[in-house]
Amino acid sequence: MVPASTLAAGSVGTVETRHLELPDPVPLDCGRKLRPVRVAYETYGTLSPRRDNVILVCHALSGDAHAAGFSTAPAAAGTRDGFAAEERDGAAGAALGWWDGMIGPGKAFDTDRFFVVSTNLLGGCRGTTGPASTDPATGDPYGPDFPVLTVADMVRTQRAFLDVLGIERLAAVAGGSLGGMQALEWAIRYPGQVDAIVVIASTHALHPQGVAWNAIARESIMRDAAWQGGRYYGTGRAPEAGMGVARMVGHVTYLSGPALHDKFGRRLQFADDIRYTITEPEFEVESYLRHQADSFVKRFDANTYLVMSRALTYFDLARQYGGGSLLRALEAVRARTLLITFSSDWLYPPQGSQEIHDALRELGRPAELHLIDAPYGHDCFLLEEQRQTPIVRRFLAGATSSRKRWP
Amino acid sequence: MVPASTLAAGSVGTVETRHLELPDPVPLDCGRKLRPVRVAYETYGTLSPRRDNVILVCHALSGDAHAAGFSTAPAAAGTRDGFAAEERDGAAGAALGWWDGMIGPGKAFDTDRFFVVSTNLLGGCRGTTGPASTDPATGDPYGPDFPVLTVADMVRTQRAFLDVLGIERLAAVAGGSLGGMQALEWAIRYPGQVDAIVVIASTHALHPQGVAWNAIARESIMRDAAWQGGRYYGTGRAPEAGMGVARMVGHVTYLSGPALHDKFGRRLQFADDIRYTITEPEFEVESYLRHQADSFVKRFDANTYLVMSRALTYFDLARQYGGGSLLRALEAVRARTLLITFSSDWLYPPQGSQEIHDALRELGRPAELHLIDAPYGHDCFLLEEQRQTPIVRRFLAGATSSRKRWP
Repeated sequence: MVPASTLAAGSVGTVETRHLELPDPVPLDCGRKLRPVRVAYETYGTLSPRRDNVILVCHALSGDAHAAGFSTAPAAAGTRDGFAAEERDGAAGAALGWWDGMIGPGKAFDTDRFFVVSTNLLGGCRGTTGPASTDPATGDPYGPDFPVLTVADMVRTQRAFLDVLGIERLAAVAGGSLGGMQALEWAIRYPGQVDAIVVIASTHALHPQGVAWNAIARESIMRDAAWQGGRYYGTGRAPEAGMGVARMVGHVTYLSGPALHDKFGRRLQFADDIRYTITEPEFEVESYLRHQADSFVKRFDANTYLVMSRALTYFDLARQYGGGSLLRALEAVRARTLLITFSSDWLYPPQGSQEIHDALRELGRPAELHLIDAPYGHDCFLLEEQRQTPIVRRFLAGATSSRKRWP
Repeated sequence: MVPASTLAAGSVGTVETRHLELPDPVPLDCGRKLRPVRVAYETYGTLSPRRDNVILVCHALSGDAHAAGFSTAPAAAGTRDGFAAEERDGAAGAALGWWDGMIGPGKAFDTDRFFVVSTNLLGGCRGTTGPASTDPATGDPYGPDFPVLTVADMVRTQRAFLDVLGIERLAAVAGGSLGGMQALEWAIRYPGQVDAIVVIASTHALHPQGVAWNAIARESIMRDAAWQGGRYYGTGRAPEAGMGVARMVGHVTYLSGPALHDKFGRRLQFADDIRYTITEPEFEVESYLRHQADSFVKRFDANTYLVMSRALTYFDLARQYGGGSLLRALEAVRARTLLITFSSDWLYPPQGSQEIHDALRELGRPAELHLIDAPYGHDCFLLEEQRQTPIVRRFLAGATSSRKRWP
């Protein structure tokens, strides 16, 4: 089931998602406390005796705990965004993790050296407690009664989860997009517990156009009559129409205009000519978007999409921690910081990372910024693994605790 | 009702949309013939005795015949796109035409000199025959049985309409966006009848990302259960939810990221803090988008949106007239060509106009291209009137027939 050739190339092999229930309620920014909270997670590599070689990898909007290796759970397939999703659908039956190119023996996050932990985010729909989970107060799924989350809430949950595992310090927290926001949030909330952060294709606050795209995606879901105010579980209907449109919007924002041009151009479905139809796709790119929407709605929960989308629009380090000043917000950071950004990423443009970099340097904190010139838009963070690998490896080789004490 | 101050500044005054039924069926690219066809139109200025001072102005996706002056028909309010819509909503009760800043005495399209004609496009919902019109074969509205149109079909209808008015030659055809496509189509289909074309913020073929945005907008409408396969007329329901999302998508593509940043930033609805809500807007930009959607669905027909959106994605001069070559397609052009494009327009980026310009020059045709550095995205063509005016006036002053023979 697992292609041997891929295994040979530094794979962590076949993995299984495990689950763990947190012993205490999780306090949330909104003022509520959530209990019970179950966390879905995977680990790769070996925990050092001193427990000082742990890297937490954080997923993006539609990801899950299955970051590396092969899962035999079919539902895990295709959790990567954009073009990346297609690339990983090749291993029939055995779904490859969303960051498999970066996690494994000899890879960027080297499992010969590090113990890599990946969790499904709070509010998720892939094993961690989320809107589809049972509300103990009613015995029914939370639906719209699930709390409105922030990135800080997700990070608090990760912190509580690692406590259960007996892991106090992290050699690094790493992630792209919403995952990068979590890394930043970790460095500010728990400055004494994070040695390094790897922030890829992310920002300290999504720009207004990104806020707008996310609002449109949520509107599309909530305006779908099948959403039913969020209480669609068990009704036999789900807002698949609206979710599909939300996914299409997201998908186009993950890619660049030139990438769509290179991949599809204006090629017609039927090469000879147009068919004069509005209801059916005429252009290949139209058919592609419809396919992306259809496959996404099968694997993702609409209420989770709403929660994740809202959390990433809220994220704003200057507002949260700096009274409006990014510089003041970043004062707490003690972690070494690696920022990677991509020239064609217009959803999380390089400027956001540049601003973080400049503020950290002004504060005298160790930070490095790499701008990778690549054409695939935001999706680059999942596609340009080969070019990120030496940067991340070099950065982690300079890592403090893990290098000095382990192996 | 009409503000006197605005009238003084070169307004054509109060206008009324008129209607005219074409004597013959209109042959369409899809092979069908459409009859009856009614055309809604407005005219400004005075037709010269030689009938050689006519400028046809062509509207964009959501426009109508009311291009200039004040209309007392309330439904005409706010037909301009993006930020432009707001600017024009000021004249309480008396709706200003969508290109009023460009059409009038002493303006770019100077009604002291030119007879300006504006029609609602075939397939429209503002007086010209479209999907909401009665299908003579059934006695019911066409709905989804309305033919799938091309820009060429719209231009054929304009040609037939002008025939009825006794106008053979045009001093110019002008328009922005889809309107610019019509101008180009005119220059190729009727090369002996067009002296000049003014093509603003347009292209010879929408790029794949633009095709994608349009597909998403249409999907959003068609996936709304209230669309009912297009037969929603008279049911008391219309796909307002889907249309709203379509409009939001369109709206963001009409604006630039920096424009949204300047106008809204990340300002919250309630300045003190977030409210932890997913269903209600938290950011000003979210509230703004919702408002834009709500006002649009009140004035526009969903099936017309589908028809217009499909036509502008089909438009592809190289495919239609050049066997894949833009150069060959433009060989037929005899009109002097003015192209205006805007630096921040990412929906109709400057490159498209540049390609037209370069091909025309290679063919030895008179063409000039102006790139205006302005921050408002595609919406610039409606907002940057002051900077376009001298360019257009100078170009039209060099016009052949009208200058030599009239006044």
